[in-house]
Amino acid sequence: MSSIIFQKVLQASFFSAQTPEQVDFEPAALIGIDPNGQIAQILTPADPAYTTVLQDAQEKNILQCLPPDEYLLPGFIDLHLHAPQWPQAGIALDKPLNAWLQDYTFPLEAQYQDPDFAQGSYQNLVQTLLANGTTTVLYFGTIDEAANLVLAAQCAQAGQRAFIGQVVMDNPEQTPAYYRNSSAESALESTRHFIDTLRERYGQTGLIQPVLTPRFVPSCSDAVLAGLGQLAQETGLLIQSHCSESDWEDNYVQERFGRSDTEVLKSFGLLTANSIMAHGTMLVDANLATFHQQKAALAHCPISNAYFGNAVLPVRKILQEKITVGLGTDISGGFTPSMYRNIQQAIISARMLEDGVDARQKASERGVKNSRITARQAFYMATVNGAQALHLNTGQIKTGYTADLQVVQDPLAKIASSDPAAIFERLMYQTTAQNIQTVFVKGQVVANHNQ
Amino acid sequence: MSSIIFQKVLQASFFSAQTPEQVDFEPAALIGIDPNGQIAQILTPADPAYTTVLQDAQEKNILQCLPPDEYLLPGFIDLHLHAPQWPQAGIALDKPLNAWLQDYTFPLEAQYQDPDFAQGSYQNLVQTLLANGTTTVLYFGTIDEAANLVLAAQCAQAGQRAFIGQVVMDNPEQTPAYYRNSSAESALESTRHFIDTLRERYGQTGLIQPVLTPRFVPSCSDAVLAGLGQLAQETGLLIQSHCSESDWEDNYVQERFGRSDTEVLKSFGLLTANSIMAHGTMLVDANLATFHQQKAALAHCPISNAYFGNAVLPVRKILQEKITVGLGTDISGGFTPSMYRNIQQAIISARMLEDGVDARQKASERGVKNSRITARQAFYMATVNGAQALHLNTGQIKTGYTADLQVVQDPLAKIASSDPAAIFERLMYQTTAQNIQTVFVKGQVVANHNQ
Ligand SMILES: [Zn+2]
Ligand SMILES: [Zn+2]
Repeated sequence: MSSIIFQKVLQASFFSAQTPEQVDFEPAALIGIDPNGQIAQILTPADPAYTTVLQDAQEKNILQCLPPDEYLLPGFIDLHLHAPQWPQAGIALDKPLNAWLQDYTFPLEAQYQDPDFAQGSYQNLVQTLLANGTTTVLYFGTIDEAANLVLAAQCAQAGQRAFIGQVVMDNPEQTPAYYRNSSAESALESTRHFIDTLRERYGQTGLIQPVLTPRFVPSCSDAVLAGLGQLAQETGLLIQSHCSESDWEDNYVQERFGRSDTEVLKSFGLLTANSIMAHGTMLVDANLATFHQQKAALAHCPISNAYFGNAVLPVRKILQEKITVGLGTDISGGFTPSMYRNIQQAIISARMLEDGVDARQKASERGVKNSRITARQAFYMATVNGAQALHLNTGQIKTGYTADLQVVQDPLAKIASSDPAAIFERLMYQTTAQNIQTVFVKGQVVANHNQ
Repeated sequence: MSSIIFQKVLQASFFSAQTPEQVDFEPAALIGIDPNGQIAQILTPADPAYTTVLQDAQEKNILQCLPPDEYLLPGFIDLHLHAPQWPQAGIALDKPLNAWLQDYTFPLEAQYQDPDFAQGSYQNLVQTLLANGTTTVLYFGTIDEAANLVLAAQCAQAGQRAFIGQVVMDNPEQTPAYYRNSSAESALESTRHFIDTLRERYGQTGLIQPVLTPRFVPSCSDAVLAGLGQLAQETGLLIQSHCSESDWEDNYVQERFGRSDTEVLKSFGLLTANSIMAHGTMLVDANLATFHQQKAALAHCPISNAYFGNAVLPVRKILQEKITVGLGTDISGGFTPSMYRNIQQAIISARMLEDGVDARQKASERGVKNSRITARQAFYMATVNGAQALHLNTGQIKTGYTADLQVVQDPLAKIASSDPAAIFERLMYQTTAQNIQTVFVKGQVVANHNQ
């Protein structure tokens, strides 16, 4: 007999990553979620208390039983996404990075000064992400506080866990006059104001939290980078930016500072255990060692990298070196809101790194040996490492963890293998929003396919 | 006043490829489909007859008007798909090709000797493909006629245009005893029997047609290759197989025959204007010249190639050389039934070929310059070139072409650019089965999202 009070008990077969190589499968478990949205108890059918808890939950009308072709997974954690770029997802991806920024992205981001536009776009985005099983997002917003507060309100209303960054970009050489912080001081002042407002509205421990967000080194002055580094130390907030994301960006920082992007970010106090840096395709071994030392995390965005990264991040090596690397959609450098799609492309890109791309080279010289990753490793990045990067107690189905979860239907259950390892791979490869039945954040339903 | 009798008139804004670089957009056109399923007339709003035809269709109750956020596209043509492998789509993709074949694929294909299993699996596959906008498929079946007839029956019942190949594989060194033609003679005999049965049941000009299908050179004896070449000449049927699909396969043929896969296929009479060869990642320039000379077509399967191809097919070069190259899902070397997904990966892979994958190499030495392709080029492959490879009068929305069509809803219509070029890119990147409203083959509804 359990003395724990539950708000909800799920009877579900679930998958949850233990290590990059081990995904646990528990058939027909009972997952008791307490009123705070924490997983308070997990029972397997062999457990003596199982039947009592099951009956008790049924009597109290708080039991939800999954059908045999549905599975429970942790919700996904998207470590890199530019919220204002959603309307251009998939557009102009054949342009070079600089043209893509100046001719498409900056004009679009500037449009969010219109609150009605912001409202419509952000509502669509947040609902789409939840419907795709993403329970937590690390968002880049725009430079405008009002628009970022619209995003925060949408996340709060929809019940999505969100880290929101007010973008800082004050370098007149790399940003347009119509979309730029007028000075380092005003950028820092506006960041402080945004942090205070967000904390006032949503509390320091709630679903919605601010993040320090220098866009990337090229668009920031030294003064603003230094100021943000100081703010990071004062506030203990998370820091997000881009690091060594392409040949151009990597070379730019090297030329401006005579040091690598990694070293520059570190010197400004922006590469710490609170940092999540996107891309990193150009990081050399010494940079990776610095990431490890600083306990800084990476957001791997394989779809975006295919368009703008100029190379493939060697994820397998980075996992082996125990650097925290999660996954990000990087909307709209990446076109899709789906973390499943990024899990798939992470595997595909790693395979292409291993095999190489140019058939005219000898097979032995074509790629980088031992670069492939498994579906299990990609899933680990999308869940466990995402949570670790954001210092969250979620990403796994475990007692004491927050119940951020998704229920996924196996579309081939009737005709395909019922071996759990096969089911797991199938879920990773075949799931679209169409198969995602229900999504929970803190145990509350935030998306329901049938509604 | 039109004197043409229509079975249906669609009022629709449509996209249709003219050349690899030009996609036409016609807003609010009237597309009149005759009783044979042909597009008999297309009128734009500027045409004097527009209003009369519109009113006439309305009175006869044969008018279907698309809402403003929906668009008409040609249905997709999937040039390479192993129907029996559908239940393992996404499974064991981390195995080497040979283990994947011997331990997973051949045992699964052998299961289709059970007609109930075949029925359930093929029904699911055909419906899934139609729901994804694929109106024509070039299928590999199994070596068993009964199972292939189940596939044909499913396609006929669902209304999908299908080319079905009874697989030939008689080389004891490369195939397992439990799944092999017992001799070249029996393989040829069974192919002849299958062709006759299919023609009897579905007619020579119907939706369902037979294709000659040596699995690939490694699994075939010289005798069976020669026999199939002769059969190709006698019957004028299409021929499908794999060619230079990986380092292993390419080397195997070179060692067995002392010549390239392309030359071997040609010498057996299997590389003609009726041929569609999958993959070709290892083709060298001389091979491509032979493809051009023979007017043989290629089926590019970018997702599958990432796992098993060992390199990226240089599609842009191949398009420039005017070799007919279409797209294929290659289920289950590729995991997805969606041609949209293969359009996207074709663009991604071409970009990765251009940029290279290994950041440790200098940018200038990392990839193959000028390899990227546009969404327009990928769309052209999935429609126009697919039709051309199969000698079909479809793949475009044009008078005199068969009405194999899909209606797609733009999921971001409310918040994103209404510029037709942007809408086109968005449809290519954002469409999932969820957004595909209706699919037509020969003007008949074969899939309807709301049913
Ligand atoms: Zn970014
Ligand atoms: Zn194949």
